[in-house]
Amino acid sequence: MNTESTDPLVIFTPSGKRGRFPVGTPVLTAARQLGVDLDSVCGGRGICSRCQITPAFGDFPKHGITVSRDALSDWNSTEQRYKDKRGLIDGRRLGCQATIQHDVVIDVPPESQVHKQVVRKAASARTIIMDPATRRFFVEVAEPDMHDPTGDLERLKRALRDQWQIDDLRADLAVLAKLQPALRKGNWQVTVALHQDHRGGPARILDIWPGYHDTGLYGLAIDLGSTTIAAHLCDLADGQVLASSGVMNPQIRFGEDLMSRVSYAMMNPGGAGEMTEAVRMALNGLVQGLTTEAGIDPALIFEAVFVCNPVMHHLLLGLDPVELGQAPFALATSDSLSLPAAQLDLSTVNECAQVYILPCIAGHVGADAAAVALSEQPHKSKDLVLVVDVGTNAEIILGDESRVLACSSPTGPAFEGAQISSGQRAAPGAIERVEIDPATKEPRFRIIGLDMWSDEDGFAEAAAATGISGICGSGIIEAVAEMRMAGILDPSGLIGSAEQTGTPRCIAEGRTHAYTIWDGRPEGGPLITVTQGDIRAIQLAKSALYAGARLLMDEMGVDKVDRVVLAGAFGAHISPKHAMVLGMIPDVALDKVQSAGNAAGTGARIALCNSAARAEIERVVQQINKIETAIEPRFQEHFVAASAIPHATDPFPELAQVVSLPDVSFNTGGDGAGGGRRRKRRG
Amino acid sequence: MNTESTDPLVIFTPSGKRGRFPVGTPVLTAARQLGVDLDSVCGGRGICSRCQITPAFGDFPKHGITVSRDALSDWNSTEQRYKDKRGLIDGRRLGCQATIQHDVVIDVPPESQVHKQVVRKAASARTIIMDPATRRFFVEVAEPDMHDPTGDLERLKRALRDQWQIDDLRADLAVLAKLQPALRKGNWQVTVALHQDHRGGPARILDIWPGYHDTGLYGLAIDLGSTTIAAHLCDLADGQVLASSGVMNPQIRFGEDLMSRVSYAMMNPGGAGEMTEAVRMALNGLVQGLTTEAGIDPALIFEAVFVCNPVMHHLLLGLDPVELGQAPFALATSDSLSLPAAQLDLSTVNECAQVYILPCIAGHVGADAAAVALSEQPHKSKDLVLVVDVGTNAEIILGDESRVLACSSPTGPAFEGAQISSGQRAAPGAIERVEIDPATKEPRFRIIGLDMWSDEDGFAEAAAATGISGICGSGIIEAVAEMRMAGILDPSGLIGSAEQTGTPRCIAEGRTHAYTIWDGRPEGGPLITVTQGDIRAIQLAKSALYAGARLLMDEMGVDKVDRVVLAGAFGAHISPKHAMVLGMIPDVALDKVQSAGNAAGTGARIALCNSAARAEIERVVQQINKIETAIEPRFQEHFVAASAIPHATDPFPELAQVVSLPDVSFNTGGDGAGGGRRRKRRG
Repeated sequence: MNTESTDPLVIFTPSGKRGRFPVGTPVLTAARQLGVDLDSVCGGRGICSRCQITPAFGDFPKHGITVSRDALSDWNSTEQRYKDKRGLIDGRRLGCQATIQHDVVIDVPPESQVHKQVVRKAASARTIIMDPATRRFFVEVAEPDMHDPTGDLERLKRALRDQWQIDDLRADLAVLAKLQPALRKGNWQVTVALHQDHRGGPARILDIWPGYHDTGLYGLAIDLGSTTIAAHLCDLADGQVLASSGVMNPQIRFGEDLMSRVSYAMMNPGGAGEMTEAVRMALNGLVQGLTTEAGIDPALIFEAVFVCNPVMHHLLLGLDPVELGQAPFALATSDSLSLPAAQLDLSTVNECAQVYILPCIAGHVGADAAAVALSEQPHKSKDLVLVVDVGTNAEIILGDESRVLACSSPTGPAFEGAQISSGQRAAPGAIERVEIDPATKEPRFRIIGLDMWSDEDGFAEAAAATGISGICGSGIIEAVAEMRMAGILDPSGLIGSAEQTGTPRCIAEGRTHAYTIWDGRPEGGPLITVTQGDIRAIQLAKSALYAGARLLMDEMGVDKVDRVVLAGAFGAHISPKHAMVLGMIPDVALDKVQSAGNAAGTGARIALCNSAARAEIERVVQQINKIETAIEPRFQEHFVAASAIPHATDPFPELAQVVSLPDVSFNTGGDGAGGGRRRKRRG
Repeated sequence: MNTESTDPLVIFTPSGKRGRFPVGTPVLTAARQLGVDLDSVCGGRGICSRCQITPAFGDFPKHGITVSRDALSDWNSTEQRYKDKRGLIDGRRLGCQATIQHDVVIDVPPESQVHKQVVRKAASARTIIMDPATRRFFVEVAEPDMHDPTGDLERLKRALRDQWQIDDLRADLAVLAKLQPALRKGNWQVTVALHQDHRGGPARILDIWPGYHDTGLYGLAIDLGSTTIAAHLCDLADGQVLASSGVMNPQIRFGEDLMSRVSYAMMNPGGAGEMTEAVRMALNGLVQGLTTEAGIDPALIFEAVFVCNPVMHHLLLGLDPVELGQAPFALATSDSLSLPAAQLDLSTVNECAQVYILPCIAGHVGADAAAVALSEQPHKSKDLVLVVDVGTNAEIILGDESRVLACSSPTGPAFEGAQISSGQRAAPGAIERVEIDPATKEPRFRIIGLDMWSDEDGFAEAAAATGISGICGSGIIEAVAEMRMAGILDPSGLIGSAEQTGTPRCIAEGRTHAYTIWDGRPEGGPLITVTQGDIRAIQLAKSALYAGARLLMDEMGVDKVDRVVLAGAFGAHISPKHAMVLGMIPDVALDKVQSAGNAAGTGARIALCNSAARAEIERVVQQINKIETAIEPRFQEHFVAASAIPHATDPFPELAQVVSLPDVSFNTGGDGAGGGRRRKRRG
């Protein structure tokens, strides 16, 4: 299109893009030529209404133009028919029908943008810009001609090339089987769901419908953890989460932590296959639940993005994880994977749905860590940030825009309430917060599902609905930290006796002691205590976490970080103060500790909604320096020193400004429980 | 490598390629730099012995050099060890170990060439040059390094890139699952079976073995016909056919010919699926039989090439063929297809095996016709050649290097012995040749499996083994033509009575007559006759064939062709003279009628053994002009005129020079069988 300086000037907001176009140019055409982000599924035929725009009239001194009421063409019959039938918001026009007559300012509302921004609740996290790999395209296909015979697929490909500039295309047999009826039923007009590979490989037709088919396309963001599997069902048009759900990973019955599952695979012929089958079955059930909850057709799920640690990654793919159990911890494959969902036996989605699995960083630092990096963007941070994803294994990332390091540390499942005497998963009735009065040594607590403290009036009655059943991960962390602050626990991790602490809540348990949080026995409930064994489990977990962070700080050559981000399913529930009292994380000002929620899950959502983010994380992962904790001799040193609460040698000056920890010691010379178990575990 | 004019001169035979190389250059290296076709699987490590060459010594005046005995280096320890262990033919050296010392002439024997020519029996057919898509490659892979963690697959890819210049690679999950054990068992050396796409798409690792694995790789060339499925099991290294087999297409129970199968799909919900399942099951059985016969592991079959007509094509792929039953006969897809064998439920091959299906030319002219074009190369012919592939449907191609036309004609299965009263498939005991004495009207015949005529001594005893069971396709053609030559059949296709013909072998059958070829009833065998109904069936078939050929000749603007090639499973068994007496093919000198045997099957073998041939036929198919017989009014005219034997109006001057046909007429005014049925069939 040749333009002249006398042609009308068109200015698009909010982009600010501008250009001159001959009178009669459709607004959609102008937008496309200027690269303005204006959606269209039907290709400008006045069918899909995705290209709605709002012309603005009047004086625009900022832009130096005045827009008259007749700046756009009158309503034509197509546009009028659309409005009469479906309705249009006042002031809105269809960008493909309204043509430019005079200088005009045109606003593209967010819902008309393909690459709309998704506003997220957590302020700290990045915004998601929609750029899904799978989108709908409406096309008109030439009818077959006996004098120039070509297949229907070949004519559909030609139409997609001519009308949408999509060149390299594949269609599975399942789509091919639907093609001929769809073309005829739609009178040679069809809507296709098209998956475009972010690496520039051939696009893939995932589904086809007769005529213009106004349907949502959906995707799954799945965080496949050792203990829980969490999934979000998202709308691929606007990123909205329609349903979220989590289930226990059924592989738990083969082994609580990663290493015991690897052992199961090593010791049992076919054991890896059993675990693969179990997790795939659980995934199908989980997805089925999500579609039922959201009330959508499973055949409209076209994509699933997975993040997981390397052992989960291999077991999901049907690969024996045995090499991940021994140095040098070689992955079968570390790059990202794009494959049909059917290959993972994912049957509760469209039969042609595509799976994307983020790349792994190393044998102990998986796609989940990559997802955390994608969500938290340490490689773009100006200050030095430590990102800790707390789960059964902790993924730790330290870095800024100059350099990023990563490692994984075997914290075990204690932080998730497992291996804790009264531990349980986070569910209604679980104690999630604990406070202990330093003077009286009396505790008060809150349970999940109830918005009041245990010492408030009416608590007992309200709690009767769920009962008080145990302590969840965040509860045990608070309990142990509060015990330390109240002088019930000494720095070495010993619980004092009733005599030493002056409270009958400390009760003898063999040669050690336990602290009573809640005695439900009179009412037939449980006795909930924190035992010496619980303390040891927490010490092992937090030492591993701290030692991993220190190892990265050594490698980076720093003694201090600027900022800590707590991620992980329960990262959001850990109070920074308690985490620091425990010595889980390096000393830092409390207001520099942020919670990122389930950052791995967020990373999965970003990769689901934004195809370019896949390319980004693949690039970033290449640049991350991986540290292998298992072979670093200093890890062991750091681990031992970190056993004390908060730490044997490292000063915690920032913490000291907020909390003063009582200087108690309950060692009477007889107890040696901790060391022995620690040695055994690291052996 | 910099070379100087004083460096030794190396001349390779038979290619004649020559160049100078520094002293010490391995022969394999020199061959590669000159583009000489010298095989190597191990990449020059002295393991695979595929690079064997023979130095020639003495004077070579033609090349202007003299080769001394020390032109190549002495045997090194690797080469000596190989010879001691495995043996080498006298005079042979390993090209990767022997280095160049002085001027030398080096012969590359055929077995050391990758692109070796496959000598074929039929002189008329083209030679196959080996260039298989799937080949073995031996690679050394870097061990995992914890300080630079990458997946085993990523290191294998790097090795294939560095050692074999293969860049873009994929591996299925099935291969990924074998990768880690294979690398460790092979001490970081593995052999992979690699499939390279002829369109330049990513290569695909189909299998992996520890260390250097000296195995054959095999492929299938499958001609999937409406009536029979024929398959060859070929060695992908040298093109050798290790086993061939054929089975009836089990879809016959759903309908004898193509249109009745399309009808079955239209009339029965799920009917297409039933037929798909039936043919896939038959294919698995067929392949299983082939591997058993050849004694090879089914997991070593890595490729299968299919040729078939459009209806078989769609049913194989699981596509409803309904559109192929009605104008405009639109194919779901016409391009060639490359897909995993697993998608076709082909389970008796390697789990990652790849299928290639040749492109279809049009809705009635399928991948089988494309295969015939690939085998017979009409597009490279200097003279005008008519290629006729006779089967249940006849594919007809007419052309030369300037232009190629193609059509399909519905001959029905009469030529294959079906719909013939005493017809049967070609099997021992079937009459395959017939001669009738024009004077006595007495027949003599031969049966399949016996190398003598029925009037020879000892025939009866010898035939007792199989019995005389019926007439096969070539037998019925000869019988009808001989009846015409002997004056038993008139030009309109009427069989005379005993009185009219003067032989008691003509017996009454209702209002018509039949000619007795063999009366086995006294011995408890069948009465084998050619009935008036059989004649009508043959007339319908041959008229369709002739009319198709004439339609192409009209379009080409010619009255005569230079050459006729008879292809098809039984094309080899039709005598040109009898075909022409029948008027199956246009008049041409008898020595210009050639038989190409199963040209479609040969085309499949070519595409199996030569990857570049796939690109060639895809290009050629684009250039072929398709003629749709069903909508050409002249087809009907040609069909009616061709009903007479040999023809109502077209002169057959070439035939007249060899055979003089008696001018008889048996029409007594009462018979009208032929016309009525003919009209019914074409309605």
